[in-house]
Amino acid sequence: MNARFSPGHLTSALLNPASIALVGASDDPAKTAGRPQTFLRRAGFQGRVYPINAKRATVQNAPAWPSLEALPEVPDHVFVMTPTETVLEVVGQCVKLGVPLVTVLASGFSESGPEGVAREEALRRLVAGSQTRLLGPSSLGVVRASTGLMLTANAAFAEPDVPAGRLFVASHSGSMLGALVSRGKARGVGFAGMVSVGSEVDLCIGEICQATLDDPSIEGYLLFIESLRHGAKLQAFAREAAKRGKPVIAYKLGRSAAAAEMAATHTGAIAGEDDVADAFLKDLGIARVDQFETLLETLPLARRFPLPPSGTPSRPLRVGVVTTTGGGSAMVVDQLGVRGIDVTPATPATLERLAAAGVAANPGRVLDLTLAGTRYDVMKATLDILLDAPEFDLVVSVVGSSARFQPDLAVQPLLDHANHQRPLAAMLVPDAPDALARLTSAGVPCFRSPETCADAIAAVSARRPLGTPAAAQHTSLTPARPISEAQAYEILDTLGVPHAPAATISLSQKPAPLPFAFPVVAKVCSAEIPHKTEVGGVILGINNQDELQSALLKLQQNLAQHAPGVACDEALIQPMVKGLAEVLIGYRVDPEAGPIVMLAAGGIWAEVARDRSIRLAPVNVETAREMVDEVRSLATVRGLRGKPKGDLEALAAAVSALSQLAVRPEWEIAEAEVNPMLVMPEGQGVLAVDALVLR
Amino acid sequence: MNARFSPGHLTSALLNPASIALVGASDDPAKTAGRPQTFLRRAGFQGRVYPINAKRATVQNAPAWPSLEALPEVPDHVFVMTPTETVLEVVGQCVKLGVPLVTVLASGFSESGPEGVAREEALRRLVAGSQTRLLGPSSLGVVRASTGLMLTANAAFAEPDVPAGRLFVASHSGSMLGALVSRGKARGVGFAGMVSVGSEVDLCIGEICQATLDDPSIEGYLLFIESLRHGAKLQAFAREAAKRGKPVIAYKLGRSAAAAEMAATHTGAIAGEDDVADAFLKDLGIARVDQFETLLETLPLARRFPLPPSGTPSRPLRVGVVTTTGGGSAMVVDQLGVRGIDVTPATPATLERLAAAGVAANPGRVLDLTLAGTRYDVMKATLDILLDAPEFDLVVSVVGSSARFQPDLAVQPLLDHANHQRPLAAMLVPDAPDALARLTSAGVPCFRSPETCADAIAAVSARRPLGTPAAAQHTSLTPARPISEAQAYEILDTLGVPHAPAATISLSQKPAPLPFAFPVVAKVCSAEIPHKTEVGGVILGINNQDELQSALLKLQQNLAQHAPGVACDEALIQPMVKGLAEVLIGYRVDPEAGPIVMLAAGGIWAEVARDRSIRLAPVNVETAREMVDEVRSLATVRGLRGKPKGDLEALAAAVSALSQLAVRPEWEIAEAEVNPMLVMPEGQGVLAVDALVLR
Repeated sequence: MNARFSPGHLTSALLNPASIALVGASDDPAKTAGRPQTFLRRAGFQGRVYPINAKRATVQNAPAWPSLEALPEVPDHVFVMTPTETVLEVVGQCVKLGVPLVTVLASGFSESGPEGVAREEALRRLVAGSQTRLLGPSSLGVVRASTGLMLTANAAFAEPDVPAGRLFVASHSGSMLGALVSRGKARGVGFAGMVSVGSEVDLCIGEICQATLDDPSIEGYLLFIESLRHGAKLQAFAREAAKRGKPVIAYKLGRSAAAAEMAATHTGAIAGEDDVADAFLKDLGIARVDQFETLLETLPLARRFPLPPSGTPSRPLRVGVVTTTGGGSAMVVDQLGVRGIDVTPATPATLERLAAAGVAANPGRVLDLTLAGTRYDVMKATLDILLDAPEFDLVVSVVGSSARFQPDLAVQPLLDHANHQRPLAAMLVPDAPDALARLTSAGVPCFRSPETCADAIAAVSARRPLGTPAAAQHTSLTPARPISEAQAYEILDTLGVPHAPAATISLSQKPAPLPFAFPVVAKVCSAEIPHKTEVGGVILGINNQDELQSALLKLQQNLAQHAPGVACDEALIQPMVKGLAEVLIGYRVDPEAGPIVMLAAGGIWAEVARDRSIRLAPVNVETAREMVDEVRSLATVRGLRGKPKGDLEALAAAVSALSQLAVRPEWEIAEAEVNPMLVMPEGQGVLAVDALVLR
Repeated sequence: MNARFSPGHLTSALLNPASIALVGASDDPAKTAGRPQTFLRRAGFQGRVYPINAKRATVQNAPAWPSLEALPEVPDHVFVMTPTETVLEVVGQCVKLGVPLVTVLASGFSESGPEGVAREEALRRLVAGSQTRLLGPSSLGVVRASTGLMLTANAAFAEPDVPAGRLFVASHSGSMLGALVSRGKARGVGFAGMVSVGSEVDLCIGEICQATLDDPSIEGYLLFIESLRHGAKLQAFAREAAKRGKPVIAYKLGRSAAAAEMAATHTGAIAGEDDVADAFLKDLGIARVDQFETLLETLPLARRFPLPPSGTPSRPLRVGVVTTTGGGSAMVVDQLGVRGIDVTPATPATLERLAAAGVAANPGRVLDLTLAGTRYDVMKATLDILLDAPEFDLVVSVVGSSARFQPDLAVQPLLDHANHQRPLAAMLVPDAPDALARLTSAGVPCFRSPETCADAIAAVSARRPLGTPAAAQHTSLTPARPISEAQAYEILDTLGVPHAPAATISLSQKPAPLPFAFPVVAKVCSAEIPHKTEVGGVILGINNQDELQSALLKLQQNLAQHAPGVACDEALIQPMVKGLAEVLIGYRVDPEAGPIVMLAAGGIWAEVARDRSIRLAPVNVETAREMVDEVRSLATVRGLRGKPKGDLEALAAAVSALSQLAVRPEWEIAEAEVNPMLVMPEGQGVLAVDALVLR
């Protein structure tokens, strides 16, 4: 059997190894290389553990072995803790012995200059095609508290009673596992498994998580992502997880340029643009949270909101808020508002039902029961009615001081509704650890700050139903090269992306009458000249046949001067057209995210205000309409101040049409950009007036 | 002596009352009206407490009094806990007796419809001009743990051992005091006093805080603000607090439109625009935090950064980060980055000094000591060098797992530098309550999440040195009315705000030759017609004297048709000019913030992207330059993509000039707007081509 192609085998070596070898094990339990043995023993790991140390007969009172070859069996998992320089040799031995899984602790690979890059490449070649899978380098190991598999050099696992639970964690940063364990413990959140994936030379987050999907003890996934890597495998995992209803929650660094740059140096990866990664995560149904603590608080909420089926339009959650404290609920409303979620007020029908039940409530955006709401019966009756009201997808109870002083009374009405068909969540205004613990253990989504409450709700709400997967893309070894504008228009024609009429004519011959009226623009047309204005290759405002002929002459002169030697004997002629607004539609195969489509404001606004919307391609027209809605500057053609409306329906159709490149891998198109795309008045469509396609 | 004009008397009645009467005191300690007596006794309050309850001989085993009149003395502070309908009568008695301070618990005033508004007006009239000051209504009372003054009906003060400390809290929301107490306790943060100000019919946050400024036990202020109210008094307090180096930290609701609307209904106030309030707070040196928990964590940091003197240019803090955990520090860098603070890397000189001290550090944006940094001597040596390095204003240490497992070792190097001249702060990646407690009690700024760490640093960094105060403004009882454009230009001339040349001519006479060249624009000129285009009152592109005459005729016809009966016999003629960019400069006397000046993007961008910068007026040219820098769309004229640069220096001068209206109260100008102001190429200034002034 070839271990490489058996996910079952990988899962078992990773999470249920029968035997582990610790290469470079130290006799000193306080040293990094001494920790795994100490932790495994303390945690009661039942498998066989072989410390390898040629210099000692025993390590931490266990018999030591001189080498991997000397072991009585091939271990399932080898943890290599020796210095960087020795790693290749040890991994080579593992490959030779057919060890299924080897984890490398050392750093000093692609993040450490040319020598490290070479070392990493050698490591990759070593395991490629072998039966051995590699975790790391820079991996702090694997932890599974329930079985005592505490195979880690992370000092944080000196923690007594590491809480077991139902979350599986995969992290680019090993040290964050420790932070999650201690913070999780304080919050009553435990873990089914934790993997420090390091720099993912072989095994990556996506593949590791996918290997665990059949484990019924795992209910959801937390990912700590430094930058998007191995996107295709992450995508495959996310699609499978969505099918099985196992939520994936992610914290990703790189919202700021500085952190993106830092993540890149830290791991040796090239950090992509954060909004591309953001679109990738949301389109795969992954809840991306903004606050670190929200990572721990989001699973119970996400479990209550299975992803809508593919093809369902996405819409924000309709959140109702009930409270005993005006100030506390206002913070939640504010935090939701800045994340684009306007709290939904109760309808008059709901208010009537409340009044009939004897609940006095100030009508308003939130239902403020004031002090009366601290009585069990009042809150119980209120929740009965709110959770049956059709206007809410989620009801959030913002609990005041009683959560601290009478946790039993204050949270009981919430616990009573823990399994109600409509989800309920709680935000506790005071410091109220007891109430939080009760709610957490009952599986009620609960939050200790207004910010994490809103963050989790927004992250769950922003997940989108899975779209059509893109076709596998050809990857070319040579850089993509532009084709001519005329050829680009042929592709737009096939896709059904409208463009201004265009006639190709010879630069050197007397032009025949044009199929459209003057005034026109003349542009040099050559695959060799992607940036036409730079060579004086565009002449605007040509009013008649004579001017056209002079223009062609001028273009020839400009070419001779600015692009000597470039073969170009054609010009593209188009009528001068003007739209109500100009936008850019772009398609490209991102190295990590795969095919993406982008709609952006025209001109400087794409740069200054980063006014753009991105999705994984292909997108249908409904999704393209959402993208149109997200571009703020299109407000100018949505009827603002009585100005004429643009044909945004046609724009959505064009975005969707261009995105279909993602299912045309046979065309081998790496990038396509329509810029500008003119938005004409309502009913008059859109018109591409320039296009650049790279193949 | 008139108590009304003695801040000392107010302070003493508020924070050190010798005697308190509890009107409507309940015998049941669990009831709202029973709590203050219970809490005062439990806290060991040493003053005299008089429960007033006409129906009982004793209340909670103390002798009860039938009425305020029956008391043996005039109490310093009367807490009225009787129902809304009785409040006027009881407060009337207090006024008659000359009680210095009366606090009203009941709600049901201006937030409750027309009847409540009338009740509130009656209450205001009752205390106006009397010796009695009013706290509330809707006030939960006053707390001063150090003297046992637990005069509150807030259930949260059932808390045993309410921590005493050096922060004074004033809050619009009474229930948030409880949240601050419990959360403060969990974080080792205590309070010198807490006041629930309610709806501020008389006493407001500004006046209350100002009355406590001489109290040496108070080191700083926390404000929980629902919406900006009593701005002038808040401003007076903030200016005094800044002089004494007592930091003010504020959490203000209303970042989102929904919460702003809610704050308005909750309190009966009209919520202003959040960015006006934001400018107000920053210009007064108040650190506005975004996260609720940051309120509690910011004082130690703010104390280390006294406000720069007036006139000093403001600049963001230069923050250096040192860490033992790459992932943890990346979160801090990311969170600072999204708040506009780029972490400063160590200079080569600093790296050399570190190397000489034997500290191995990966050069990069943060100084990552990796595991070596968990050793006391390594971190100590590193901090010695970093805190002496001239490139940092603040050094943040991001501490990993050792903060939890070896709090003594991990925080000792930080404690050693607690009083270093250059400030040091800590962010703890794991849950590490012991380490936090040690740092907090040593006064080292420390944070339990990357978000609050960045929030606090950004809030402290965003405070601005105090500017020139505006002159007191005349308040007019009649709504402000526009003056004509020609009169508006006279005002711009006096202020030195450049505008396009303008000639006023009669509509009905043959025009004399113009003092400038054609083409020109003609606009009707009348104080009665502020919106000229709506009556067809603007004609563009007039090329010669004949066209001008026809234009005047056309204007007359349009006026007759669209504005019949409006007296208007003048037109304003200006040359047609075009700038590189168009902006709006506005000045107005905001009802709460006072005079403000705004620079905004022209056209739809002010609306769509809310691309604007606001300051309290007047501003000097340096501050106006900062405003120019903050308007993102001006990127088009900052040399983007080789485009010509605009005269932004002249724009800053014009903003400063218009803002001087704030020191011209004798002109009685309520509002002035130049829109558009044309930004001409560098060296060619700016030109107002339309102006609207309201008086």
